[in-house]
Formats: sequence, structure tokens, C-alpha cells
Amino acid sequence: MIGRLNHVAIAVPDLEAASAQYRDTLGAQVGAPQDEPDHGVTVVFIELPNTKIELLYPLGEGSPIAGFLEKNPSGGIHHMCYEVDDIIAARDRLKSEGARVLGTGEPKIGAHGKPVLFLHPKDFNGCLIELEQV
Amino acid sequence: MIGRLNHVAIAVPDLEAASAQYRDTLGAQVGAPQDEPDHGVTVVFIELPNTKIELLYPLGEGSPIAGFLEKNPSGGIHHMCYEVDDIIAARDRLKSEGARVLGTGEPKIGAHGKPVLFLHPKDFNGCLIELEQV
Repeated sequence: MIGRLNHVAIAVPDLEAASAQYRDTLGAQVGAPQDEPDHGVTVVFIELPNTKIELLYPLGEGSPIAGFLEKNPSGGIHHMCYEVDDIIAARDRLKSEGARVLGTGEPKIGAHGKPVLFLHPKDFNGCLIELEQV
Repeated sequence: MIGRLNHVAIAVPDLEAASAQYRDTLGAQVGAPQDEPDHGVTVVFIELPNTKIELLYPLGEGSPIAGFLEKNPSGGIHHMCYEVDDIIAARDRLKSEGARVLGTGEPKIGAHGKPVLFLHPKDFNGCLIELEQV
């Protein structure tokens, strides 16, 4: 059911410093910051040859990243995203196996303009998993 | 400098359950458990189309995963591994930029039989980063 690893998202306490580190020290291809007000984050995309890294920084009030950074002041891996062909079929299969889908259970449009869902970390080895329909 | 994301490693409290979940619920291609006594872990490799997930479970006394699972009883993302062409050149560049390399600073032979190094999470946004020479 799951396909490619679409991205790994890292919450960072200093977006400029983290971008510079990936660009200059780690020598990766780092994009410009993009505000995603609907998601409460500013995102920097890092293109690796086979997948993406997303640096996340809080944007506005009530950002979903703010609490994570309070608990992890140095930052940390926030979630990983697997691609699926059919997000409704994936959701229904997961729910029938007892996995919990976060929020309303209905897909939202994610930062890439495609339908996404998040799964409960306690049901997946402590990992917050995003599913994205591609 | 960094190339492909070689793998994401997830420490899990129940290797059999986590393997079954990735195979049966998430529908991924899951290998058989492999004991890696030199690294103090039992590993299950999950092949995605573009990268790998490694499930890690403690093996023997003093496993490097045991403390992580004590702090994170549900499990969690333990590290991510970037590929490099020349691990000595990568290490020297990182050290010259002030990043700390864990252990002696000399590469060890990793679970894939290739030279690896780990970088200090505090220097990399709270993420434990493995570099593997490919």
C-alpha cells in the first residue's frame, strides 16, 4: 500500500541557521522559505536525489510545530510522509485494522497541494506518519 | 556533499508487531530480522521504492537502542542516514565547520558493511545523523 517516502520533516528552532547548515555545511540543494499559513508553518524544502527533507518552523498563533519545539528545543524529526495511490482506500484499510487517523479523519490539502492524512504516533511505533495521495 | 537518504531508522518496542504492521497493514516489503551483534541491534529492513526504513530492536547488553526505548516506550525515529562519496572528506569538512562527530571520530563499519559515522544531534536540529560512504 505505501509507496515512496515522500519526505522527512524536521522541526527546527532557527530556520535560517538550519537552511544555511544544509546548504553550506552539508552541501545540499536548499530552497527558499515558503509560508504556509493554512498549516501554521514556514517550510524550506531540501531536494535530495531520492526524496525531500522539509525544515519546519512555526508560523502564526497555534502552530502545530510550536508545542513540539517547546518539548524539543534543539528541534527534531517531526514526521515522515509515505505516498499512497488512494488516500480514502488507505484510510479505510488502516481504520479497519484499528489504527487511528488524526483530526476529523477526512483528508486535508497538504503543503504540496495534495490530499493528506496523519496517523496517530502511538499506533505506529511513536512515529507521526503522514500519508499523501500522489 | 550529502547524496541520497539511505534510510530512516525507527526504534521499536516490539519488532515482530512492527514488522507485521508494515507488512500487513501498510503493505510494504518487509525482510526477515537480522541480528547485528557488533551494533547491539536486531534489524528489519523495509524496502520502499526510493529508500529504506530500518526497524531497530535492542540485542544483548548495552544496546545503543535500549536507552532510547526507555525514554520513548512507544518507539520513535532514532536516526536518519545520508550517503556521502568520501566519508573522511565529509568528516573533515564537518569538523572544520564546528560539528561534532560521535565516538572516536574514526568511521566504523556499519550494518550494511560500509564505513559510517554519526553526528551529534545537538549540532543538527536535534536529529541523530548517520553518514554512510557508498
